[in-house]
Amino acid sequence: MEASHSCRVVIPIDLKKKPREQKIPLHNRWHPDIPPVAEVRTGEVFRVEMVDFSGGGITKEYTAEDIKYADPSIVHYLSGPIRVLDVDGNPAKPGDLLAVEICNLGPLPGDEWGFTAIFDRENGGGFLTDHFPCATKAIWYFEGIYAYSPHIPGVRFPGLTHPGIVGTAPSMELLNIWNERERELVETGLQSLKLCEVVHSRPLANLPSTKGCFLGKIEEGTPEWERIAREAARTIPGRENGGNCDIKNLSRGSKVYLPVFVDGANLSTGDMHFSQGDGEVAFCGAIEMSGFLELKCEIIRDGMKEYLTPMGPTPLHVNPIFEIGPVEPRFSEWLVFEGISVDESGRQHFLDATIAYKRAVLNAIDYLSRFGYTKEQVYLLLSCCPCEGRISGIVDSPNALATLAIPTSIFDQDIRPKTNKVPTGPRLVRNPDIPQCTYDGKLPTTKNPSATA
Amino acid sequence: MEASHSCRVVIPIDLKKKPREQKIPLHNRWHPDIPPVAEVRTGEVFRVEMVDFSGGGITKEYTAEDIKYADPSIVHYLSGPIRVLDVDGNPAKPGDLLAVEICNLGPLPGDEWGFTAIFDRENGGGFLTDHFPCATKAIWYFEGIYAYSPHIPGVRFPGLTHPGIVGTAPSMELLNIWNERERELVETGLQSLKLCEVVHSRPLANLPSTKGCFLGKIEEGTPEWERIAREAARTIPGRENGGNCDIKNLSRGSKVYLPVFVDGANLSTGDMHFSQGDGEVAFCGAIEMSGFLELKCEIIRDGMKEYLTPMGPTPLHVNPIFEIGPVEPRFSEWLVFEGISVDESGRQHFLDATIAYKRAVLNAIDYLSRFGYTKEQVYLLLSCCPCEGRISGIVDSPNALATLAIPTSIFDQDIRPKTNKVPTGPRLVRNPDIPQCTYDGKLPTTKNPSATA
Amino acid sequence: MEASHSCRVVIPIDLKKKPREQKIPLHNRWHPDIPPVAEVRTGEVFRVEMVDFSGGGITKEYTAEDIKYADPSIVHYLSGPIRVLDVDGNPAKPGDLLAVEICNLGPLPGDEWGFTAIFDRENGGGFLTDHFPCATKAIWYFEGIYAYSPHIPGVRFPGLTHPGIVGTAPSMELLNIWNERERELVETGLQSLKLCEVVHSRPLANLPSTKGCFLGKIEEGTPEWERIAREAARTIPGRENGGNCDIKNLSRGSKVYLPVFVDGANLSTGDMHFSQGDGEVAFCGAIEMSGFLELKCEIIRDGMKEYLTPMGPTPLHVNPIFEIGPVEPRFSEWLVFEGISVDESGRQHFLDATIAYKRAVLNAIDYLSRFGYTKEQVYLLLSCCPCEGRISGIVDSPNALATLAIPTSIFDQDIRPKTNKVPTGPRLVRNPDIPQCTYDGKLPTTKNPSATA
Amino acid sequence: MEASHSCRVVIPIDLKKKPREQKIPLHNRWHPDIPPVAEVRTGEVFRVEMVDFSGGGITKEYTAEDIKYADPSIVHYLSGPIRVLDVDGNPAKPGDLLAVEICNLGPLPGDEWGFTAIFDRENGGGFLTDHFPCATKAIWYFEGIYAYSPHIPGVRFPGLTHPGIVGTAPSMELLNIWNERERELVETGLQSLKLCEVVHSRPLANLPSTKGCFLGKIEEGTPEWERIAREAARTIPGRENGGNCDIKNLSRGSKVYLPVFVDGANLSTGDMHFSQGDGEVAFCGAIEMSGFLELKCEIIRDGMKEYLTPMGPTPLHVNPIFEIGPVEPRFSEWLVFEGISVDESGRQHFLDATIAYKRAVLNAIDYLSRFGYTKEQVYLLLSCCPCEGRISGIVDSPNALATLAIPTSIFDQDIRPKTNKVPTGPRLVRNPDIPQCTYDGKLPTTKNPSATA
Repeated sequence: MEASHSCRVVIPIDLKKKPREQKIPLHNRWHPDIPPVAEVRTGEVFRVEMVDFSGGGITKEYTAEDIKYADPSIVHYLSGPIRVLDVDGNPAKPGDLLAVEICNLGPLPGDEWGFTAIFDRENGGGFLTDHFPCATKAIWYFEGIYAYSPHIPGVRFPGLTHPGIVGTAPSMELLNIWNERERELVETGLQSLKLCEVVHSRPLANLPSTKGCFLGKIEEGTPEWERIAREAARTIPGRENGGNCDIKNLSRGSKVYLPVFVDGANLSTGDMHFSQGDGEVAFCGAIEMSGFLELKCEIIRDGMKEYLTPMGPTPLHVNPIFEIGPVEPRFSEWLVFEGISVDESGRQHFLDATIAYKRAVLNAIDYLSRFGYTKEQVYLLLSCCPCEGRISGIVDSPNALATLAIPTSIFDQDIRPKTNKVPTGPRLVRNPDIPQCTYDGKLPTTKNPSATA
Repeated sequence: MEASHSCRVVIPIDLKKKPREQKIPLHNRWHPDIPPVAEVRTGEVFRVEMVDFSGGGITKEYTAEDIKYADPSIVHYLSGPIRVLDVDGNPAKPGDLLAVEICNLGPLPGDEWGFTAIFDRENGGGFLTDHFPCATKAIWYFEGIYAYSPHIPGVRFPGLTHPGIVGTAPSMELLNIWNERERELVETGLQSLKLCEVVHSRPLANLPSTKGCFLGKIEEGTPEWERIAREAARTIPGRENGGNCDIKNLSRGSKVYLPVFVDGANLSTGDMHFSQGDGEVAFCGAIEMSGFLELKCEIIRDGMKEYLTPMGPTPLHVNPIFEIGPVEPRFSEWLVFEGISVDESGRQHFLDATIAYKRAVLNAIDYLSRFGYTKEQVYLLLSCCPCEGRISGIVDSPNALATLAIPTSIFDQDIRPKTNKVPTGPRLVRNPDIPQCTYDGKLPTTKNPSATA
Repeated sequence: MEASHSCRVVIPIDLKKKPREQKIPLHNRWHPDIPPVAEVRTGEVFRVEMVDFSGGGITKEYTAEDIKYADPSIVHYLSGPIRVLDVDGNPAKPGDLLAVEICNLGPLPGDEWGFTAIFDRENGGGFLTDHFPCATKAIWYFEGIYAYSPHIPGVRFPGLTHPGIVGTAPSMELLNIWNERERELVETGLQSLKLCEVVHSRPLANLPSTKGCFLGKIEEGTPEWERIAREAARTIPGRENGGNCDIKNLSRGSKVYLPVFVDGANLSTGDMHFSQGDGEVAFCGAIEMSGFLELKCEIIRDGMKEYLTPMGPTPLHVNPIFEIGPVEPRFSEWLVFEGISVDESGRQHFLDATIAYKRAVLNAIDYLSRFGYTKEQVYLLLSCCPCEGRISGIVDSPNALATLAIPTSIFDQDIRPKTNKVPTGPRLVRNPDIPQCTYDGKLPTTKNPSATA
Repeated sequence: MEASHSCRVVIPIDLKKKPREQKIPLHNRWHPDIPPVAEVRTGEVFRVEMVDFSGGGITKEYTAEDIKYADPSIVHYLSGPIRVLDVDGNPAKPGDLLAVEICNLGPLPGDEWGFTAIFDRENGGGFLTDHFPCATKAIWYFEGIYAYSPHIPGVRFPGLTHPGIVGTAPSMELLNIWNERERELVETGLQSLKLCEVVHSRPLANLPSTKGCFLGKIEEGTPEWERIAREAARTIPGRENGGNCDIKNLSRGSKVYLPVFVDGANLSTGDMHFSQGDGEVAFCGAIEMSGFLELKCEIIRDGMKEYLTPMGPTPLHVNPIFEIGPVEPRFSEWLVFEGISVDESGRQHFLDATIAYKRAVLNAIDYLSRFGYTKEQVYLLLSCCPCEGRISGIVDSPNALATLAIPTSIFDQDIRPKTNKVPTGPRLVRNPDIPQCTYDGKLPTTKNPSATA
């Protein structure tokens, strides 16, 4: 019985060390000049380990203070870049397609817990920040495939575990496109885009900033570091390179076809989620954790031209393609909430799927709060449990119609509407002591029309 | 062997007659004063038959002329209203919840075909009307659970058949809310809402109009007809009463929990779809057909208060709830396209799920057109096949991220990206002769950046 | 709106008439000389209607007398034979493979009910006839896709509807093989085969008999009728031609690849089941009903040689192949019972899957009877609900291990074992008044070791 | 970032050491007097590590010699017994039910490979040993959730990983029952049971033997060891205590309800399978591997009486119950082979599910061998891939009907029968060099009727 690791660990994480102390340095920006820290060949199964997106900044403590004062400049700590070569040693080239198969994944052994949180409205907020402005947090513990939380009792579900972030490095040309369009949004968006209140009270975009910047092997403080840090894109939004796609179904057995923009592809990964609902509505909203990925790469030479269609002014305006794996948790009963594009003030919007989804989520929160939960508990739950957010109708003017489907079997009680109120025996007493901070901000918050007193 | 219908046909359709000639008159507006045409008891399984939404206006002919000049004022022909009583004969009351189970459904026997169409940009358009302004149509034939089209060869799929419309009658108060908010949108929307070009070139809303109006038992031309026709809401958008929800999973075994606004609930149904993709992107975009529903109702007394939370200025601002049935077609492999909220001109939008979904659909259309189809064929296909549209990320500023997942087994070829271009034998020659009209309109159309020559 | 049947009804059934009065005559034997009653072409979707297997002999009455004295000689009434031609008018030939797709199926309109029964031990019995010797019956009513029974309250499930019998006519050579091997079994089986008691108390086989024989167009009493009736095989067992396969998953969208033994294939169908559990343990054990099939045929020329391997002394010793359709009911939670090949007396048998499955079923019956049912109710239920019977282990000498998996969501109560006996509110009072006859037979019945008093 | 194992490793395995050198000693017999090696509390998630069933006797070498001369006396190496206490420290008691949840499982890190083998006919054989008498072996490598084998190219599938063995210790009374009934079978079975030839050429049972016996903490050679070794039951068959159930769906999230026969329950586990087909037909037929389980126990006090029904002469004649977990691989297309209880010589058997299943497997092997495989390759494949073996009909005298359903997506070619032989491009050349030994035995082997030449 010889023992040998079946797959090479190309980026190990030492959980006892801080992000900046890891042997293989991490990074938290996108830039072509962040040098690779590892090299793999196509066909090889290799293992990448990752800290949680906050690098341990958010803790297992039963407090929300760490959420309220979280430093947004440091997200997300990524492992990589990884340079990809074919079997003959030739690197992936711009124009190729990099097929990345997720052979396996999971939490890091010995670190089987995670958290879901709502950011304070002044510090990032979330999808419903006008209703829920206060920082809160729930801790989740894992029992193998299952997660449960002392903060949201009566719920237990199998995780559809996935990486929030899988991406290739942008070329300088693509990076410039990103920075330009996001800067224009920040500068003119509030005037030219008319959005519902909830959304425009959040930061429009996060432009490059040197604060909190990690650039892997590039030493902090050097002129090169200064230059790159000023240019490098933040990792928060998903973009042409993949990145923070937060596609909850990208689990075991899935494949991502990523465009290659730089020599070697420079693949980075991070932001592991034990589970997430479609939309990740609470923002810090998946069950965030450290974790590992076992990956296998193929290079489809000239695949961008073969398979991706630019949909914008340049050939770089493309998006990745995905294949979904075969081992998702199986649910058979779903309760579905819908929302239409009429906002909470009663105002009609035009085919706005964002508002419709907001309404669907609000409807679900209020419904479930009737079963013994606080609304904050449900908001956290719908952000991280395997619920499905659909665009059901996008053409029936003026109403976009979005739906949120919740698997009923994750609850230990029957949450469906009932014709006859059959007594179901003594109910468990809920103990909704979620760690929660006060909201000290200045922005007016939307009065939840259904809130009591 | 005695023979007797297991369920009473409360609204029969004679396919040889026009909509206005049916024995039980149809209607195509929402109004509390449209009188019931039938009465059912809770617990009883009953059958409702329905013409297709166009009432036969769109035909089996291989032409798109009927689409180009379709009369939008007559949609949708509905069967009902049906008054619902409990077993003691007491009607459903405002404030109750009406649980409607769909025991069975299907096309009308002898009428097993349907159509999917893109409206002309000047006559209603669709989600991608700036890219595809011309009226087109595909005819689908049914082989039991399967649909195939001579206009989109190489594809065959089982239908997830459902009614586009299930709704209760609004009260006068709710009707006034609808008319007011939609009128405000029409009057001020173009100034106050800044939308991407595709969307704002379509009609903002369809306000009440007497043209084409059918009001069931109310005789046309009478003063009562005039009054109601001027007030009655169009049926195009889904609203508080359910209505045109177009939820593609609302198939056999599903349940809808509808709020009751008037005495007897006054349930109406119509717009049967053999199959639809999430979003129904081509607008006339499901496989539209005539059909039947076998329904069973329960009344949850005072259920609105018990289960629905008003999310707006009045207690009427609610939405229905759904339970999804157990017999959906089973697919195991999905190819997924994503879109982010950057429009085709490269402009950055802020967390706009509508734009993100538009991008996902455009990406999928261009990808699939590489396998021998025209883009119009794929647009029609993605509108009616069982594809899933998800809101994957709605918080990662500035990009909303939407995904479109397509079951690969509906194609007779392998549509996945391939590392090695294995020859797959002589390909069937596609015959893409979709009936298509010219576009004679005046609105500038978006140049599809990926269109050839 | 022209109306025309989308598919031709090649064999209609008039529910007001008896089996022998149908316009197109039925048959209940397998023989090459039963002449075709209809002709279809490949590619054509056609409709076949069928009486229930008993031809109305078993009724909707709340009595089991009709079961106790059922005439076994008349089963199963089949519709057909149907002669299959290719598009050029050439018939299927011996050696071809006939691919039959089930496009759609269901109960006959106006006849939406069925029955499940246990035969009297002296009149056919069932899998557990030594435990349950008495004739009993449950009536099921259909609400669209769902079935429920006043005789087995607290249970409701969607049907996985299928034909029990799909088969081609045997050639004379094949028919002789059948008759010979089954006669040998009847004559020498009791001496040479050592069987567990339950099984050998049932008839070993049903040899050809003129009693109750229907031969379609062949007029009863003629010399030809006499000859054929003496030779023709009974339809009870599945054989090389398909026949009574009772494969519960052969539902909408499935395909059967049947060997062709005679010119034209001579396809017959019958024995429709609204639902059945694997094994159909009560024998008359599915939810038996009248029904229709919508079928489409293809001929694979010389397909027997291409795809089927004879596994016996002649080239005729083959079995059909199946493809399962995509619209099965979806269940996610299953409770599983196992059995090993030790019989109720404690005696060890050697890798006997039949005994192991018997034990698994007995275990499940006793378990479920703890939830308010009589054992007869559960026996009937497990025979017709969508439960799965598996051969889990067939090599671990001496124990074969079989499992029976039951979807928990068909019950209106939680049937899983519970650590804490949480009170679940007042239970519905069961009313287990299954029609049941007495057992007047002479065979000793096995004492059910778990029966009380 | 503190690091701590989320679950306690109660039985660790050192892959560099032989079974008898492990720190916590293993055992390979069932006996009440084998002392516990570990103790756990209810509610605690704990980890058990296990060697493969052969304890490393079968190696990664490309040879079948290790299979041919494998020592059957040492199987299966089990980890345990584990004594289970409740939260108050009181042990499980005879009469209780032990609920064991499988929270997680997998191969041991660094040992991600497995093997599937056919034993030589003289050394244990397999289900088809009369057709395939020679020892063969295939090595499988794991890429996360997927397995592939250089010996069976063109196939790759996700594992439905599970423990072959989960069981509690028998009481002395139960052990005596086992030994007595199995001894009787060995002594009289050949005379009193008439079995099909394939089966009776295998050993009827494996009675207690001191050879190869491991008894955990009991030192070999001591008088106590001698006594226990002479009494202790072999672990090959599943029995009342669970044991070698080989239920392939017993994967992540599943639960076993085991009867408790001795104080503390004395739970043992082993025989990890990366994947297995129903029946495990090749005998050494799963993908056998080392592995780990993460388990959580509950005690249902007096649960045997509450939930299990004795089905035999004593209250100990019970079987465990199972709940299946929610994360099985998802397949949507299945090709299904059937078999009836007529053996290869053409002889009719009576409702014999074992023979029917044998025929279904033989049919599938011959069919798949047409796609470029040798029959040995397919036999190995069907033994370990996630195929389903069903008892479809068990009442239609004289034929039992069994089916074997194979998910088509595990192949890289389309294995379905085709009407038109569409060329599918140049086929990969198969390289079927399975390690294979010669058969030097004396038993006559069945001539495979379909074998060429």
